[in-house]
Amino acid sequence: MRLAITGAGGFVGRAVVRQLEQCRFPGEVRLYDRAFDGQQSFSAIAADLCDRSVLDDLAAFADCVIHLVALPGAAAAADPGLSRRVNLDLPLNLLERMKGKRVVYASSIAVLGGDLRDKVTDVTPARPDSTYGTHKHKAELAFADSVRRGALSGLALRLPGVVARPPGAAAGFGSAFLSEVFHAARTGADYLLPVEPDATSWLISAEACAANLVHAATADTSLPQAITMPALTVRMADLLLQLGIVGDVRGIGFHEQPAIRRAFGSYPELTTDRATELGLRADADIAQLVARVFANG
Amino acid sequence: MRLAITGAGGFVGRAVVRQLEQCRFPGEVRLYDRAFDGQQSFSAIAADLCDRSVLDDLAAFADCVIHLVALPGAAAAADPGLSRRVNLDLPLNLLERMKGKRVVYASSIAVLGGDLRDKVTDVTPARPDSTYGTHKHKAELAFADSVRRGALSGLALRLPGVVARPPGAAAGFGSAFLSEVFHAARTGADYLLPVEPDATSWLISAEACAANLVHAATADTSLPQAITMPALTVRMADLLLQLGIVGDVRGIGFHEQPAIRRAFGSYPELTTDRATELGLRADADIAQLVARVFANG
Repeated sequence: MRLAITGAGGFVGRAVVRQLEQCRFPGEVRLYDRAFDGQQSFSAIAADLCDRSVLDDLAAFADCVIHLVALPGAAAAADPGLSRRVNLDLPLNLLERMKGKRVVYASSIAVLGGDLRDKVTDVTPARPDSTYGTHKHKAELAFADSVRRGALSGLALRLPGVVARPPGAAAGFGSAFLSEVFHAARTGADYLLPVEPDATSWLISAEACAANLVHAATADTSLPQAITMPALTVRMADLLLQLGIVGDVRGIGFHEQPAIRRAFGSYPELTTDRATELGLRADADIAQLVARVFANG
Repeated sequence: MRLAITGAGGFVGRAVVRQLEQCRFPGEVRLYDRAFDGQQSFSAIAADLCDRSVLDDLAAFADCVIHLVALPGAAAAADPGLSRRVNLDLPLNLLERMKGKRVVYASSIAVLGGDLRDKVTDVTPARPDSTYGTHKHKAELAFADSVRRGALSGLALRLPGVVARPPGAAAGFGSAFLSEVFHAARTGADYLLPVEPDATSWLISAEACAANLVHAATADTSLPQAITMPALTVRMADLLLQLGIVGDVRGIGFHEQPAIRRAFGSYPELTTDRATELGLRADADIAQLVARVFANG
């Protein structure tokens, strides 16, 4: 398999690269991003995929792509035109070029919208209420149409909160606190959480997320409809309890911001039957989630 | 009001023009289409809106647009790339240029998909299962995001089966039989329907549809989510009964094609509360629907 990773220099992308190294991935790998930090273990192309000739090169090389490039939510809201180019036009152009090949499209739970009252399942309709979620859902629809008419195969996976993004790297995500609370616990720094202890979020470690993405790339299953990647539904109180065991959470306080609570701290129960059938996995429990995050610190 | 109509030379567009003439529309009107048949009563621009400079001209003129341009379903399935340009990129480019203005976007019940078992309401989720329905729904999502963030105002209306498209003009629509049965009754010609008499479809006359579109343009209401235009849920047997009163249906037979029955002859009960609240109307009954179609034939 000739596998291309887009956004390979980003937080999730680097975890995918580690996963490919660890599993001694038997195929040829090419990494794409606008820039990379340091030496890469695979062939790395520093270029802008919004440039169509770069995309042509990628499609000429790859028989499978894991597409991770995204403009995050806050940045998308600030510049909807840029979000259209990065979060919509780019994946659509990629899908058109991957005819007869395989695509793993990294979507987001943001497509579901913020008004999730009941349990979320594989058939919960998407009701995006942000520019970011709207563009991600439009790309999902394009993916579904491509698979349905046999133009390509693959999986569209909605990523839950992937933690912990490096300090600073969560900027542009309203969900930044979900990463920052790990860093605060590690350093013992004071930190004011924007949600109360009873807030709930769907979380996965970057390692488990990357393992799922690589599994999706190498599986021979194809589904038109996007599915949510398995995740732990984590209460902030339970996360802090576990963080207190391995770190220092004495300086952590709470000052709830309703908009952040609604968007990132009010997730109901999640079932991901189809993803589980396909062999995708959440972290086993909060202890494993925290241990994995701290191991990759 | 300076009102632009795109696709003004098409079947629905011509009905909108008739409506504007009949109601002595008090604003300035410009018609856009790639070509027009004969003399137009309003300023008519024969140009391709996929050309961005044409779109710039339109946006510089109009403070409201009724966007009717579409590549129909069968043509979209045959050329998904062209469908992307006409059914997705064009409305997205239009929405970006109509900042601070008003847009009436003509969507389609095709966004709902063909698997409609229960009653359809304003909150039935879209589950498009065609390239056409997928692109129309993506444009709906872009519209919703634009309205939600205050970039523009307007309504996205899902058009039901608009009848009766002129002979030949229904080509490219799998729903062609819904128009052709009117022409057959008018001329007394033999016609083989691809659905049985118990098939049900959501129908509206071009006149009622056009009145709704003009009403939507001049209303000051704005909704992010697309809503279905009111329509009659018509059983084919009831339509044939009415057509037999004013025409000749003795040569009409039945040979059901399952794919067409599923897509265009299996519509459940429809409620359109929001559209009705906004003053949009279906034809009063099948007699009025048929009378209007025959009056404009």
